[in-house]
Amino acid sequence: MWNYHNPVSVHADTKGLSRLAAVLGDRRALLITFPEAAALGIEGQIAGLLGKQLAGIENAVQPNPDVSWLAAMYERIWQRYADVECIIALGGGSVIDCAKVMLTPTPSGRFDELLQHLRGGTQLSGVGAKALIAIPTTAGTGSEVTPWATVWDAAAGNKYSLHCAWTWPQTALIDASLMLSVPASTTLASGLDALSHALESIWNVNRNPVSSSLAFGAAREILASLPLLMQDLGNLSLRERMASAALQAGLAFSNTKTALAHSLSYDITLTHGVVHGIACSFSLPHVMRLAFGKDAQVDALLLRIFDATHTEAAVARLVAFLEGLGVSTDPASYGIVDSMDGLVQLALQGPRGRNFISNIAN
Amino acid sequence: MWNYHNPVSVHADTKGLSRLAAVLGDRRALLITFPEAAALGIEGQIAGLLGKQLAGIENAVQPNPDVSWLAAMYERIWQRYADVECIIALGGGSVIDCAKVMLTPTPSGRFDELLQHLRGGTQLSGVGAKALIAIPTTAGTGSEVTPWATVWDAAAGNKYSLHCAWTWPQTALIDASLMLSVPASTTLASGLDALSHALESIWNVNRNPVSSSLAFGAAREILASLPLLMQDLGNLSLRERMASAALQAGLAFSNTKTALAHSLSYDITLTHGVVHGIACSFSLPHVMRLAFGKDAQVDALLLRIFDATHTEAAVARLVAFLEGLGVSTDPASYGIVDSMDGLVQLALQGPRGRNFISNIAN
Repeated sequence: MWNYHNPVSVHADTKGLSRLAAVLGDRRALLITFPEAAALGIEGQIAGLLGKQLAGIENAVQPNPDVSWLAAMYERIWQRYADVECIIALGGGSVIDCAKVMLTPTPSGRFDELLQHLRGGTQLSGVGAKALIAIPTTAGTGSEVTPWATVWDAAAGNKYSLHCAWTWPQTALIDASLMLSVPASTTLASGLDALSHALESIWNVNRNPVSSSLAFGAAREILASLPLLMQDLGNLSLRERMASAALQAGLAFSNTKTALAHSLSYDITLTHGVVHGIACSFSLPHVMRLAFGKDAQVDALLLRIFDATHTEAAVARLVAFLEGLGVSTDPASYGIVDSMDGLVQLALQGPRGRNFISNIAN
Repeated sequence: MWNYHNPVSVHADTKGLSRLAAVLGDRRALLITFPEAAALGIEGQIAGLLGKQLAGIENAVQPNPDVSWLAAMYERIWQRYADVECIIALGGGSVIDCAKVMLTPTPSGRFDELLQHLRGGTQLSGVGAKALIAIPTTAGTGSEVTPWATVWDAAAGNKYSLHCAWTWPQTALIDASLMLSVPASTTLASGLDALSHALESIWNVNRNPVSSSLAFGAAREILASLPLLMQDLGNLSLRERMASAALQAGLAFSNTKTALAHSLSYDITLTHGVVHGIACSFSLPHVMRLAFGKDAQVDALLLRIFDATHTEAAVARLVAFLEGLGVSTDPASYGIVDSMDGLVQLALQGPRGRNFISNIAN
């Protein structure tokens, strides 16, 4: 038994911003973006394109959206822009995730009601939710085609996942030309995040034929194009290939969620400050070794991704791929002194860990 | 520049009919199906499941929906069931295509207005269109996840394509157990139709990374499982694999349409009475040879599908696959005396032919 549904309308175009007016129609929009978007000229470009339909701009989104600053932004938006129908999220995963928080209405317009929902206390109706047009500026997150938003509460050492019927983006505009200025470190971390999404959707109890085909296509493309892109960051064609691959990985895990490598990563990001894309990918060889031997179709797919004839060859190729990009697969490099086996046992208990293929006979 | 959007909610379950009540909710439904569904017990099963929510049954759908009999069914439905919100289409491609015709409203409720639309004369608003729940009983058509319906006008020697914003199924329920009784000839023809959908979405000017990943997954699965299924028609696991593959091929060509092999097929079906799935697949080796050499990524994908290192090896494997299933790749076997080159030149001018990769520098 399996399900697949992804309602997002995807438009990929290296002149993608020019499509924005047509996608928006006669609706008004609030732009949510990252601080550097103004200096990069993208904020001004959107303001010029939308004219009076642009009701306002929120451009102070920081990496890893945290309740400490989301609250003030949320209450400002629902005071000032309650009647604006649409949010345009221009940025990486943090910006798009932040926008999913912002578009979600609470009865009072206060953030603490949303926080209560995130903590599992209450239901929200979604009545009055704003529509989302997502324009990713990195190739990695997949957030442009998923309903998930990760919300951090660093002070409390917590991480929540927002997921509602209304947090699917309505439209994803993929314009690889916006990614040309992404620096090497972010290009690498987001590209590896996408690889992790692809592989995690395969070794997943929620895997299905559709998600696995998309994940296979994504993983093959990332293995082929990310090393080339790291040597040639200004190459638009390689940026397009990575953008498409990240999107496909997003489509795949939009119907499976992530699994063990992501479950492992959250504590590593909170405790050791390792950036998400690295935290969820350096452990992939370790996790893949655990994934083998549970399902013949999964084994065959993983072997084919790595052009390998047996488990250890596939694992070795994944290690070589990561190390070749300068990413250590040794936990000690990230200040992790505990044994991986112990961390894995803990991570398997987390919500994403329970999605891992080895956990349930299926 | 490319787009991908498929709003259909897919549920696959070998106890799929039991999900029907949940999918329908409190709506009333009209069941459209094929004559044998009653004898097979499926009609009665649905009637039992839905009780009073089942407003009526139309079970006289014939292969290749033709305007000659669609008209009377259409006018009966819009007289008797105008206020029924939902159509359940249970059957092969002809049934699901027929349902897409039936759910489409015309201002007067008369079929001739729909025919005018099909002939390119008029726009329809879609206001009052019924929702569609598609339950395929063959693995091939993909109609459960596309907005297309093929409508024939055999008397006039014509074929139309219906495609509106409202002809997307809302839900596709895939229950492979319903396919266990499909006879060998239909299993073969529909399976090859699916292979044709997959390959035609690859050698297509509308191809994109998402459709190509889905087509690759579909084609690989069909090449692996259809020969096994033909030897073991009662094998539920193989029926599930073919159902998933046909669905993925449907998702792929839902965003590309078909191409040259389908363009070639229509006249062969009309003139020589060759069943659609054979008419659109016996020419695949010929068409694939023409597709090679136009785009490096397409070439690589086709070679990988056939585990081949060069064009002629891939073509030979496709010929061996078809001939191994008892399907001649020789046009003369179907009574076609004209040269294939001449037919290809004509077919390239058709709407689907113009989708073929060799036709436009892209």
